[in-house]
Amino acid sequence: MAQSPITTRCDDFAAWYQDVVLQGDLAEPAEIVKGCMVIKPNGYAIWELLQHELDTRFKATGHKNMYFPLLIPESFLKKEAEHVEGFSPELAVVTIAGGKKLEEPYVIRPTSETIIGHFFAKWIQSWRDLPMLVNQWANVIRWELRTRMFLRTTEFLWQEGHTAHATHEEANEVVLRMLDVYADVAENVMAMPVIKGMKTQSEKFAGALRSYSIEAMMQNGLALQAGTSHDLGQNFGKAFDVQFQSKEGQLEYVWQTSWGVSTRLIGGLIMTHSDDKGLVLPPKLAPIKAVLVPIYRKDEEKAAVLEAAHRIAKEIGAKVDDRDGQSPGAKFFHWERRGVPVVLELGPRDLASGKIVLKRRDTGTKEPVDQSEVGAKLAAALDDMQKGLYNRAKDRMKANTVLANSLDEVESILKDVSAEKGGGKFVMAHIKDDPACDARLKEFKATVRNIPLVDEYDGPGKCIVTGEPVDRRAVIAKSY
Amino acid sequence: MAQSPITTRCDDFAAWYQDVVLQGDLAEPAEIVKGCMVIKPNGYAIWELLQHELDTRFKATGHKNMYFPLLIPESFLKKEAEHVEGFSPELAVVTIAGGKKLEEPYVIRPTSETIIGHFFAKWIQSWRDLPMLVNQWANVIRWELRTRMFLRTTEFLWQEGHTAHATHEEANEVVLRMLDVYADVAENVMAMPVIKGMKTQSEKFAGALRSYSIEAMMQNGLALQAGTSHDLGQNFGKAFDVQFQSKEGQLEYVWQTSWGVSTRLIGGLIMTHSDDKGLVLPPKLAPIKAVLVPIYRKDEEKAAVLEAAHRIAKEIGAKVDDRDGQSPGAKFFHWERRGVPVVLELGPRDLASGKIVLKRRDTGTKEPVDQSEVGAKLAAALDDMQKGLYNRAKDRMKANTVLANSLDEVESILKDVSAEKGGGKFVMAHIKDDPACDARLKEFKATVRNIPLVDEYDGPGKCIVTGEPVDRRAVIAKSY
Repeated sequence: MAQSPITTRCDDFAAWYQDVVLQGDLAEPAEIVKGCMVIKPNGYAIWELLQHELDTRFKATGHKNMYFPLLIPESFLKKEAEHVEGFSPELAVVTIAGGKKLEEPYVIRPTSETIIGHFFAKWIQSWRDLPMLVNQWANVIRWELRTRMFLRTTEFLWQEGHTAHATHEEANEVVLRMLDVYADVAENVMAMPVIKGMKTQSEKFAGALRSYSIEAMMQNGLALQAGTSHDLGQNFGKAFDVQFQSKEGQLEYVWQTSWGVSTRLIGGLIMTHSDDKGLVLPPKLAPIKAVLVPIYRKDEEKAAVLEAAHRIAKEIGAKVDDRDGQSPGAKFFHWERRGVPVVLELGPRDLASGKIVLKRRDTGTKEPVDQSEVGAKLAAALDDMQKGLYNRAKDRMKANTVLANSLDEVESILKDVSAEKGGGKFVMAHIKDDPACDARLKEFKATVRNIPLVDEYDGPGKCIVTGEPVDRRAVIAKSY
Repeated sequence: MAQSPITTRCDDFAAWYQDVVLQGDLAEPAEIVKGCMVIKPNGYAIWELLQHELDTRFKATGHKNMYFPLLIPESFLKKEAEHVEGFSPELAVVTIAGGKKLEEPYVIRPTSETIIGHFFAKWIQSWRDLPMLVNQWANVIRWELRTRMFLRTTEFLWQEGHTAHATHEEANEVVLRMLDVYADVAENVMAMPVIKGMKTQSEKFAGALRSYSIEAMMQNGLALQAGTSHDLGQNFGKAFDVQFQSKEGQLEYVWQTSWGVSTRLIGGLIMTHSDDKGLVLPPKLAPIKAVLVPIYRKDEEKAAVLEAAHRIAKEIGAKVDDRDGQSPGAKFFHWERRGVPVVLELGPRDLASGKIVLKRRDTGTKEPVDQSEVGAKLAAALDDMQKGLYNRAKDRMKANTVLANSLDEVESILKDVSAEKGGGKFVMAHIKDDPACDARLKEFKATVRNIPLVDEYDGPGKCIVTGEPVDRRAVIAKSY
């Protein structure tokens, strides 16, 4: 496996992505379970790091983890009209259990608003019970037709936050706070720049009043919706009769939010940073930050090199690759494909001169450094790499973002773009938040990704479809 | 909820257990999904601590986390005859997905030996690929008729380790090593003494050659199987054609193991330590180790008490319960039912005398200590409590373990025991590992829990059923 070549990004971006995943040993398709994958140790370790970063922030913003049942009575989904319409086509249904046909089937959760709504109704009576701030780490199933590892799989791992509030204003604060948390993790941990914005009505979550997203640009110029945060209004409150007595003694429906990110983030991470040699990981999400490869030809060199290798590696927290029967070249190749940020080389000549060679995965630069300084140099390299990857991605997004002032212009920019060929752009254009306008973009397979919360362009303008005045430009792109 | 009384253990142990769970706000039944529960923040936080303790040990013993699909093709289960026979009655089956009837139904994993066997066959070719050491944190479903929160629920959270080896000897080492890991966490983290032993052939895991367990004694004298570790032999290797080329060039089937513990551990934790006032947690598994309750009557006392409370709490890592509108008594009650190990009281008189009152949840003792020493005293109290809870449970197990030398004797000791009434014993008796002997115990609803790995009794003797010579006494008990 490790010896197969990786398709280049230019040749076929989609094939490149698959090669990077497989040869980084992150995951593999579970062809016997439609659209599912096995997440392998290298991939799962990244997920664990992401979980830790997210979970710490969820707890710091007052959310508590709970666990709700995987199975949801089928009738629950039907209680919210838009919700069932959106999710029905994607459901996996349990009809037999314990050897018997069930009277009422269960669906495997595609998301948990409905079952959590049911429990919120039991737990919330008074304004004193609010806000209720819950998070769940879980697996969900959505029966997708076209799947790609990490980006869209039938089963995926995610977290789903669910909150209930006394006022719409307070709910909205949480919606935007959690969007900020997601943007913080995306930018400062994943080194993946994102645009925070509002989804159009036709792209919102099924059952929400409003949805917000963070959108990232992949190296092929396609957009990836990397996280969403929803203002559910009182829709689920009414569907599940979640009422509370207000301070003023009135019976009112709660205002709810929900927000989620998933293992899809790992797909975004790969498509933001990796190169034609394979996986590139930002240091903050690298399960192994540095590997030391000892080099020796003769047996009499081995003991001294290995002793120094282990001593230095211990000091700086690196892993020593002392596998026998593998050449140094094979080892470099191995760690390169796995995206290890820094590989250190230590040979007999380095030993004599008190040096060690530090090689960066992102830039490919090799630098001999004093052994006495390697700890500081490694820390500096990791720090520089984290920043460098972010800046490179940010520059790329900037370079591939263009303005357009007519539908024709948008179409001509995006018409030949595909996940395979790349060439994608973020097209900033004025377009009205109206399903009829979204529909026009569908003609050439683009969508409004979101309407940015912060306008970095030229303010109001005329809708490219209707000519009506629009507040600011939206991001239009092809996407995953 | 918090004001309801807790049934005493003497009155009805099963009702007491349910009260402790509900009033500790650990979980509640999800009556709309058969046999499921919602794990609430107080319960989930204990699970997170347990996960951390276990996961650290799994990684230290060389295992890597992966994630396999929730759904398993129905035909997979049928490949191992004993396995399908054991699990068939408990399966939940997905027959419809994406709006269509499936050609082959999927079952929701009751355990993952089969799907992991499928992938092991893909990944393992040579002895160089061995050992393969995998762990998965996941939810599973087993359609149980009688359920009890944490102890037996239709869906539960667990970890399942799966390993493959070149030799039976090496597989067996892992089986016993992971049993040791489980015993270590049970005894040194949960403060729950356990007996490590081998299950009889009729009690082993469906598809295993041999199963081992740790068995704990609950306060009603019933046994709880708290963790299992299985020697799967070559059964799944043969069923899924997991073959490897040995060093000698032969094609051989791998030897596999699997081992798991679940949210059931939380049930064991509760039934080992809690009392008639509610939950008692060993400090190592207490999400909140100490709460400081500030006491003041007059408004002019409030500021000084709160200032000191927050200052001291910050120093020692305690939580301040500064909720308005709750009396100190209500606060003590609240934290008592939630099993917080130490509650500190700080009032105006304490402020004047430089003291603070430290109250232990386990013993109920209250001790005024110098504020300057409270950090050290708290640490000492937590340490003493961790040890004390273990010793108390160990003494209880010893006191309720009896020897018997005939089937009549075993029956007369166990006949009136029940989960509600208690009175259970561990009866140590010589009994042959033969399904016919196990069957005799079923007559009075007891089972051989395990045959201890270490004989702490009188060595060989005659089987109480057949009279044949038996190596050592086994643990016979009623159980959950």
